[in-house]
Amino acid sequence: MKPVALLTDFGLDDHYVGVLHAVLAAESPGVERIDLSHAVPAGDVWTGCYFLRCAWPHLPANAVVLAVVDPGVGTGRRIAAAQLRGRWLVGPDNGLLTALGIPGRCLVLDAETMGLEHVSSTFHGRDILAPAAARLARGDDPGALGTEANSETLVPCPIPEPEREGRCIRGVVLHVDRFGNLVTNVPWPWLVDGAELRAGWRRVGRRVRTYGDGREGEAVLLEGSSGLLEVAVNAGSAAELLDLERGETVEVRLPDGGESARKRTPGRRGAKTPSEGV
Amino acid sequence: MKPVALLTDFGLDDHYVGVLHAVLAAESPGVERIDLSHAVPAGDVWTGCYFLRCAWPHLPANAVVLAVVDPGVGTGRRIAAAQLRGRWLVGPDNGLLTALGIPGRCLVLDAETMGLEHVSSTFHGRDILAPAAARLARGDDPGALGTEANSETLVPCPIPEPEREGRCIRGVVLHVDRFGNLVTNVPWPWLVDGAELRAGWRRVGRRVRTYGDGREGEAVLLEGSSGLLEVAVNAGSAAELLDLERGETVEVRLPDGGESARKRTPGRRGAKTPSEGV
Amino acid sequence: MKPVALLTDFGLDDHYVGVLHAVLAAESPGVERIDLSHAVPAGDVWTGCYFLRCAWPHLPANAVVLAVVDPGVGTGRRIAAAQLRGRWLVGPDNGLLTALGIPGRCLVLDAETMGLEHVSSTFHGRDILAPAAARLARGDDPGALGTEANSETLVPCPIPEPEREGRCIRGVVLHVDRFGNLVTNVPWPWLVDGAELRAGWRRVGRRVRTYGDGREGEAVLLEGSSGLLEVAVNAGSAAELLDLERGETVEVRLPDGGESARKRTPGRRGAKTPSEGV
Repeated sequence: MKPVALLTDFGLDDHYVGVLHAVLAAESPGVERIDLSHAVPAGDVWTGCYFLRCAWPHLPANAVVLAVVDPGVGTGRRIAAAQLRGRWLVGPDNGLLTALGIPGRCLVLDAETMGLEHVSSTFHGRDILAPAAARLARGDDPGALGTEANSETLVPCPIPEPEREGRCIRGVVLHVDRFGNLVTNVPWPWLVDGAELRAGWRRVGRRVRTYGDGREGEAVLLEGSSGLLEVAVNAGSAAELLDLERGETVEVRLPDGGESARKRTPGRRGAKTPSEGV
Repeated sequence: MKPVALLTDFGLDDHYVGVLHAVLAAESPGVERIDLSHAVPAGDVWTGCYFLRCAWPHLPANAVVLAVVDPGVGTGRRIAAAQLRGRWLVGPDNGLLTALGIPGRCLVLDAETMGLEHVSSTFHGRDILAPAAARLARGDDPGALGTEANSETLVPCPIPEPEREGRCIRGVVLHVDRFGNLVTNVPWPWLVDGAELRAGWRRVGRRVRTYGDGREGEAVLLEGSSGLLEVAVNAGSAAELLDLERGETVEVRLPDGGESARKRTPGRRGAKTPSEGV
Repeated sequence: MKPVALLTDFGLDDHYVGVLHAVLAAESPGVERIDLSHAVPAGDVWTGCYFLRCAWPHLPANAVVLAVVDPGVGTGRRIAAAQLRGRWLVGPDNGLLTALGIPGRCLVLDAETMGLEHVSSTFHGRDILAPAAARLARGDDPGALGTEANSETLVPCPIPEPEREGRCIRGVVLHVDRFGNLVTNVPWPWLVDGAELRAGWRRVGRRVRTYGDGREGEAVLLEGSSGLLEVAVNAGSAAELLDLERGETVEVRLPDGGESARKRTPGRRGAKTPSEGV
């Protein structure tokens, strides 16, 4: 039995997440279930993709990921199981399925092919996606879930890539976490000594290694746990101090000669972009 | 080993839910544990019953449900294990145990009979109910938990049934979910073309199939995932738009000839009432 | 395989807790995972210790506890695995590891000794602590995790002990729970008839057995579920009514002759202090 990891925008105020777990336990008794997060803001595919990218490198190699951020539930949008580097990712085709890159295989799920009887129009997570994940966890034939489709036709992930032009890197705030840290989409290895983050009138230039290295009330730059540039305030909130939100633009200015930083400072993980798996 | 599903009003801000899990893992190592919800508002038996009804059809057939919404903990109220359609439901006798109908068998739990030593007056979930659930999960003799009682004497579930009178259905808002959807206690199959929901001065008449079918800012009627009439706003909050809360009255007006709707439009799940298992 | 219990200050708004679970499932497939709480306020070692004390007596005897409240992540602070009464406690050396008393054995974790390759400076929970917990759960040799250290050198738990002087007990509010109950660090058995709690101008004297015994709007004293003096308001919030917060001082005045209460009223659990395991 393969483990199933759950990611949703259901929150924990209702019974919805509990019911997904119930279906998994009913359809594949004893399956290992891992809650990645249920705090994706309602309908926010971007944050769903971000969480998937962060968790992906740490999941069991054979995990089945059930991702339900599905504002279009019941409409014409497709739902699918996508295979990517040995794992299955099951969810709606709205950008979630390409969060980690283009899958090697893609099956559009079909309730009739799956022999499902009671399918609502409002809770496909429970009625189609969780049963599909349970069957993949059990090792059932994936081909019995639906129809093969061209992975290139999947809706692209909405998270923008950072852009480099000379000494300027243009990025965005990917996420604000509970500690108020601002996670950007700029790979840490792109930075060099003297680099400065700019957002409107704000400037942050000091680079540190750990959150605790910041002085009280000081915004600092550091490498976040997924290898991305993060702005943090020790024992405070960078989001509040800098008044920045998810999705806002940030700019990183490299010093003279910084254009070739990528070649000179590859960093531990190399200069891969987020979509290569942060 | 049977799986145990947990439902409480403990929230996730304290260690209380964690301790229930600890007791289950200590008393029945390896037991499958399913969190249905811990976000029942404090002492709110009604919402506890609603969540139980929603989750019930999707639980493993042999599940033991541990339901702790227990404002009367330590007082004279009874605590019991109730058997219902192959499952056990363990909790206080305050309406929770009859959420799904009258159980076929009922055992009033007794700490002494169970041989429990350390029983507080303030946390029976930890000290009696979780141990009882763990023993039922292990397959211990239910008779060793306490004394058989007449299920008919259990406190009735507080959720009102919808009422029909001619062309008028009187119901209530059962629940407002995190998406702002208003879930009523009116079975969807009772509606017919031309039906209109009324709440005070508000009128909602358009029926759709999915949340995404609503126009921006428009309240619509649809069949929720438990077969009940729901009011929703696409990418918005019906609760805010209509200014309605849990427990408030709603009325559904059927068009001329709508009185016999029940017979003419039985719906997929038939015209069963919520207490038959939504 | 031993069960692993998780306690963090990560909250549930991000993917951080999910990633800890992913690492545990990847490193020790099939391991039982128990979420004690993830709602420790950010960096609040005190509350982390309090939750550990409350959960400790109820955990499986062989549990591995992974405790990540780590404001100093990546700095010079030590991280360690501490053995205490048959269980392992894995976390930063900032007071968490001595919450239950001085451990019998202590190993300072070392990423190199553990052979870990990708260690960030910002998420040791994921990169060192969870792998260490997973290895202890699998039964690996603890000695391969790092270097033995003297447990007496561990940072002491920040929770103050209650003080007795004649007829006066000085304590603090340890925790305010979701129900608004004020949990103090005063062992319940220290109280006798006629004892009165004082906090500023406020006086609470009536002792009850259960939350339901309080009258509407009345603050009462009772024995909380961990054997400590608690102030509660039936169906209300004692914290709001008395305007008290975590960390504030409370005083208990014993009546004449109350000085020797400890000897006369040992209580069910004896008059042990919190640090002996509440």
